Amino acid sequence: MVKNAPKKEVTRIPRKGDDLSEWYTQVCLQAQLSDYAPVRGCIVMRPYGYAIWELIQSEFDRRFKATGHQNAYFPLLIPESLLMKEAQHVEGFAPEVAWVTEGGGEKLSERLAIRPTSEVIIGIMYAKWIQSHRDLPLLINQWANVVRWEKSTRPFLRTLEFLWQEGHTAHATREEAAEEVQRMLEVYREVAEDVLALPVFAGKKSDNEKFAGAIATYAIEALMPDGKALQAGTSHELGQNFARAYEMKFTDVDEQEKYAWTTSWGVSWRILGGLVMTHGDDNGLVLPPAVAPHQVVIVPIPRKGAEHVLPAARELSEQLRGVCRVHLDDRAEQSAPWKFNEWELRGVPLRIELGARDLESGTVTLVRRDLAADDSARKESVPRGSIVTHVPLLLATIQRNLLERARNLRDQRTTVASDRDSLIKALREQRGFVLAPWCERPVCELDIKEATGAVTRLIVGGAESGEQCAYCGQPALVRAYFARSY
Amino acid sequence: MVKNAPKKEVTRIPRKGDDLSEWYTQVCLQAQLSDYAPVRGCIVMRPYGYAIWELIQSEFDRRFKATGHQNAYFPLLIPESLLMKEAQHVEGFAPEVAWVTEGGGEKLSERLAIRPTSEVIIGIMYAKWIQSHRDLPLLINQWANVVRWEKSTRPFLRTLEFLWQEGHTAHATREEAAEEVQRMLEVYREVAEDVLALPVFAGKKSDNEKFAGAIATYAIEALMPDGKALQAGTSHELGQNFARAYEMKFTDVDEQEKYAWTTSWGVSWRILGGLVMTHGDDNGLVLPPAVAPHQVVIVPIPRKGAEHVLPAARELSEQLRGVCRVHLDDRAEQSAPWKFNEWELRGVPLRIELGARDLESGTVTLVRRDLAADDSARKESVPRGSIVTHVPLLLATIQRNLLERARNLRDQRTTVASDRDSLIKALREQRGFVLAPWCERPVCELDIKEATGAVTRLIVGGAESGEQCAYCGQPALVRAYFARSY
Repeated sequence: MVKNAPKKEVTRIPRKGDDLSEWYTQVCLQAQLSDYAPVRGCIVMRPYGYAIWELIQSEFDRRFKATGHQNAYFPLLIPESLLMKEAQHVEGFAPEVAWVTEGGGEKLSERLAIRPTSEVIIGIMYAKWIQSHRDLPLLINQWANVVRWEKSTRPFLRTLEFLWQEGHTAHATREEAAEEVQRMLEVYREVAEDVLALPVFAGKKSDNEKFAGAIATYAIEALMPDGKALQAGTSHELGQNFARAYEMKFTDVDEQEKYAWTTSWGVSWRILGGLVMTHGDDNGLVLPPAVAPHQVVIVPIPRKGAEHVLPAARELSEQLRGVCRVHLDDRAEQSAPWKFNEWELRGVPLRIELGARDLESGTVTLVRRDLAADDSARKESVPRGSIVTHVPLLLATIQRNLLERARNLRDQRTTVASDRDSLIKALREQRGFVLAPWCERPVCELDIKEATGAVTRLIVGGAESGEQCAYCGQPALVRAYFARSY
Repeated sequence: MVKNAPKKEVTRIPRKGDDLSEWYTQVCLQAQLSDYAPVRGCIVMRPYGYAIWELIQSEFDRRFKATGHQNAYFPLLIPESLLMKEAQHVEGFAPEVAWVTEGGGEKLSERLAIRPTSEVIIGIMYAKWIQSHRDLPLLINQWANVVRWEKSTRPFLRTLEFLWQEGHTAHATREEAAEEVQRMLEVYREVAEDVLALPVFAGKKSDNEKFAGAIATYAIEALMPDGKALQAGTSHELGQNFARAYEMKFTDVDEQEKYAWTTSWGVSWRILGGLVMTHGDDNGLVLPPAVAPHQVVIVPIPRKGAEHVLPAARELSEQLRGVCRVHLDDRAEQSAPWKFNEWELRGVPLRIELGARDLESGTVTLVRRDLAADDSARKESVPRGSIVTHVPLLLATIQRNLLERARNLRDQRTTVASDRDSLIKALREQRGFVLAPWCERPVCELDIKEATGAVTRLIVGGAESGEQCAYCGQPALVRAYFARSY
């Protein structure tokens, strides 16, 4: 017979510095963000993880709508013959496609791809909808699942199926399309930094690293604790490639027929993985208040003779409900210390402890999740009367502190290299981004990859006249951040 | 060269009474709810349709959360061997499954089903998560796409891929599960009637019509203008069928191991199709204000010498922004009458016309979409000063009127039959639901279907003692609504 004790959810996780990979997996599992699914490479996003995702979604969605985009939904399945029209796109995605070959008990006459991304199906519809310059710009976003047949997978960071948003826009001119690409890159940067507290570099991808079918890809890149870069969002200038492949033409003001200029941009649940990696510590998840399902957890500490603690905790919870997302943990079957551990593991930014002594002194005890146990600022006692004004300020402080801390770390670990030895050494050490002058030749990038495992992550500016490529010595055209990556 | 005139979106739709099927398709297309996709049986949900869907989603989602449910996300793909464990479920769904057989350039060793519904994958996870009675009830909802290989398809009403929500819950007792099923059925009824203005009957499905794998299915059914019923939401008692198939066991308070009792319940974008069918008229779509992306459209009527009309319309729009979802149609390239037609076609509940004469008299002209052109209440002139209080009241009136009108029609078309001749006659006439005493024998239902094309839609109560089945004359056990259906 199974023993009828409360199941201990809180088990050991390795120290973050000892084994980042195992630490990450255990935090995702034990904080109940995700679970393994009985399908290779797929995960289940559990309610707590999904609640974070809903908050992330709403922050993006609000900004997409504020910049004139509308949501829509396009089919999951794409006939093979249609997928095959944009040559580079096919080459990039065909190896990763999952194919439906049977349906309704019969073998299909044509294979159907599960969308790995939706440029194709959306391009076909846009060609139908766009007739005149008055139909432009066409600004649509889709929240959807996509499937890419990845070999090795990790929760959120790389999964066979993932949830994402994909924006797809069409414009009358190249300039407008280029502006859109930068506008959405800036939305991504803003949400990453201001909401997720993830400091990112933004810039252009090298030719090797750009999206299959794009003329230029821009991205935001975050630094993970192991010194690897995480691409957290991309924004593509597709030029007229898809417009030509799918006959997306419009009559311009000058009465000429022209191909439209299109863009696409996407962020996936991978960014949630980046958030876990960046802020978490040896005790588990640390959530920025902006995306914490519970920003504050109240743990009453009822002792014998202090039966008034629980009603006081309820009252406090009601008071705070108007100013933050508060959760009262009034479970009788768990001890207060057990709850402290659990909510630390699950990353709640602020804990309020309320015991008999607090009630006597008319105070509550606040404990910040973002500071270490030996930090004297971690715990403070606050008069109950000021709690409703104090908590929102403290949440804002936590939010700011997480970003600053991550940015300082990222900047400390970003180095500069100007010659081959220092570049190779820095990349092999893998502390973080390495900024170096570069010739922009694809073959040079492949050489660097072979030597170090790293590639360019972003091109962030032009080189100075006379500067040489740090790796090959040929004339440098740009400055680029190099790093290994997820 | 293509002529550079504004494309006329507003073309002829057939009269609703003449050809409901073609009327429906044209309204979906021309109101820009949906478009055909280049994949058999699939549709694109265009931004205007999706905006309605987002409003519908938020009404459901709020109620799901208020009743203790959390959202999560489970994988799209289900290995064949796992799908095959609950026998009735397999039998019901296997013929409709789309199979992935190739991925990453290789033939898979096991076929993967694209989920037709998620009882299986969720059941497997629940078996892992549920250990103790303390883990129950487990109340999860998922917003997702599913695929069922339908032969004939129509926008929203029946599509190969569709968007829906599926709730899946597990409980310690049969009673709790049964309560949950009724609770969610009531949520469905409430949203259908109070939000979508769709009058529905709620009740139990016959054995022939119940969900594959359920011990009992409950549903809400709406009446369409052609006298057919539309199943708009279902709520299933799954008993311990899935718990046994997937080993979902828990240790109860009495320390005994028991199988959990599970439920599932779902509403899809089909309900949007029902809304279009029910409220629309010869001029196109009619939206209930609660789910109208634009509740009010302001059409300025600028004439020469009346350049102050447009600024006044902007001011009015700003005033209304706080009390409703308002859209100012200030396009210069379209005439006011053209705009009237377009927004009627797209179902906007209330139009505000603002011309020079209105400005002089300090009034605005309101035009209700829900009333016919010859109805004197359709148009009214309202002092500008009272518009901010008047519009919300009028929107509430429109919302109420749409429900009442549909309910009256439904009730007028619901008849009672107590013998075979009257039952057959009523079902062949296909005016609406026919309430009749019934023996509850599956074979009798099949006989009725063969004779009339109709089946039971809902069982709504017990028969009186001594009552006979209207069709076969055997003792009647229940009263049921019969109808043909979508």
